[in-house]
Amino acid sequence: MKLAWKEIIAAVDAALDQYLPPETAYPEEIHRAVRYSVFAGGKRLRPLLTITAANVFNVPLEHALPAACAIEMIHTYSLIHDDLPALDNDDYRRGRLANHKVFGEAMAILAGDALLTCAFETLAREAPKYLPLETVVALQQEISRAAGTAGMIGGQVVDIISEGKPVDAETLEYIHRHKTGALITCCIRCGAKMGQASAQQLALLSTYGEKIGFAFQIVDDILDITGEEEVLGKKTGSDAAKQKATYPALYGLEAAHKEAEKLLAEADACLEPFGEAAESLKSLAQMLVNRTH
Amino acid sequence: MKLAWKEIIAAVDAALDQYLPPETAYPEEIHRAVRYSVFAGGKRLRPLLTITAANVFNVPLEHALPAACAIEMIHTYSLIHDDLPALDNDDYRRGRLANHKVFGEAMAILAGDALLTCAFETLAREAPKYLPLETVVALQQEISRAAGTAGMIGGQVVDIISEGKPVDAETLEYIHRHKTGALITCCIRCGAKMGQASAQQLALLSTYGEKIGFAFQIVDDILDITGEEEVLGKKTGSDAAKQKATYPALYGLEAAHKEAEKLLAEADACLEPFGEAAESLKSLAQMLVNRTH
Repeated sequence: MKLAWKEIIAAVDAALDQYLPPETAYPEEIHRAVRYSVFAGGKRLRPLLTITAANVFNVPLEHALPAACAIEMIHTYSLIHDDLPALDNDDYRRGRLANHKVFGEAMAILAGDALLTCAFETLAREAPKYLPLETVVALQQEISRAAGTAGMIGGQVVDIISEGKPVDAETLEYIHRHKTGALITCCIRCGAKMGQASAQQLALLSTYGEKIGFAFQIVDDILDITGEEEVLGKKTGSDAAKQKATYPALYGLEAAHKEAEKLLAEADACLEPFGEAAESLKSLAQMLVNRTH
Repeated sequence: MKLAWKEIIAAVDAALDQYLPPETAYPEEIHRAVRYSVFAGGKRLRPLLTITAANVFNVPLEHALPAACAIEMIHTYSLIHDDLPALDNDDYRRGRLANHKVFGEAMAILAGDALLTCAFETLAREAPKYLPLETVVALQQEISRAAGTAGMIGGQVVDIISEGKPVDAETLEYIHRHKTGALITCCIRCGAKMGQASAQQLALLSTYGEKIGFAFQIVDDILDITGEEEVLGKKTGSDAAKQKATYPALYGLEAAHKEAEKLLAEADACLEPFGEAAESLKSLAQMLVNRTH
């Protein structure tokens, strides 16, 4: 059963709406702040990857929603905290004012904390309705590890301490692999674990996840240079202004394009053994590399 | 088997040291920041409560350590974020400089995020070594709910939006019950759940937890007025300076003392049906109300 992306995104939005406390729940301020960023027009790339990877093994959409939404909550919290004045100090995100510009710094910090907490609450409360507890715990291990200092937070730390300094290729790769790569790979691994993938299948899909995670970040950095602000919904050129370490900054735009294409081909190769079942994952990778925003 | 408090605290410190990445793990900055606050001389009250409650049901110390440490990590992250300039703007904590004064705001925000993430990683990775998965998931549900907007974060939000405003008794009680009460009650409930307590036992212990949680907060606020700075390790009078809503501010010192004693007696009453097995919990409550720091 192949799922249409639009169908998946609609289901993810509905599930997020169900899992998160309503805006009317006391204290309303925090729930307004949380929902402002969760429903800010994100691409839902991570839920799409999670659900599409699970679908390779015929895991029903409904069963994959708790993990998919938990990862989206973690992604959203990381954006809220990244935008804070003490970190990236960005005023805009996805074409709208950043969370802290609307709700203030204190509420933005707490909204991020709330989303991170709610991600693990969702896993513990919702996932056992559909999955064996061994799988639930395996997903929690995957997600907490990918989101922590061995993953996303680690990448964010190195990104911050590298700002304004010359960055070597090794450090740049560390930042990419961790800041965005870890959570993207995690989506694929969670999908595979929900599908009770074999060790070999898990290894192939993990490599696929790593390749597209890296490609995604390179494309992101390319778009920061070449993209149109109206399309991206955020200021372009901000990486350069902050002397951020990026792939195109280190190797140039052409090499960056080539690298993204190379990674896409390598990712595709990992999907070969899955045949037809992985067609959707293949298309997702292409969409990801060829996107314009 | 009755456990000595010193023995429990030593085991908790050793377990925290084992669960948290070492300072030598890359990127070192974040692990130094995390460990600075985790090993800052905290009283380990929450792990003590968790382990002592579990011990009522003869749960071995070792089995209760993952949940006890996860809760301590969450408590510590909340202190790091609370102290940030955008929130309480405190420069000192437990007699040492606040995390953000040593490591900077960005690293303090990320250290808090890392601890919150590590709490759930610890539950998912360590608890299944000792407990049935049904219990692990039950603990995760308890802890995530108590730490979220229906618990600790909710209390923090109302505390912040009430600053500098006249606060009524209802709002004050909400802040107390949530900001500190929810996580303290959670400790007791987790101990009971690890011990496979009956519904009636769980209800009694939950009430015990609520009573001592409230008493703990009242004593905290009394000490902020009457305590000696050298003993407390933080500035006294800071609540009054910030026009924070506190029980003694609303009702006076004498009424506050009386209320704490009344809550202690009510908490004690909840432990009657447990007899000898709850002696340690009883002593803990007394220590908590009679403490001078």
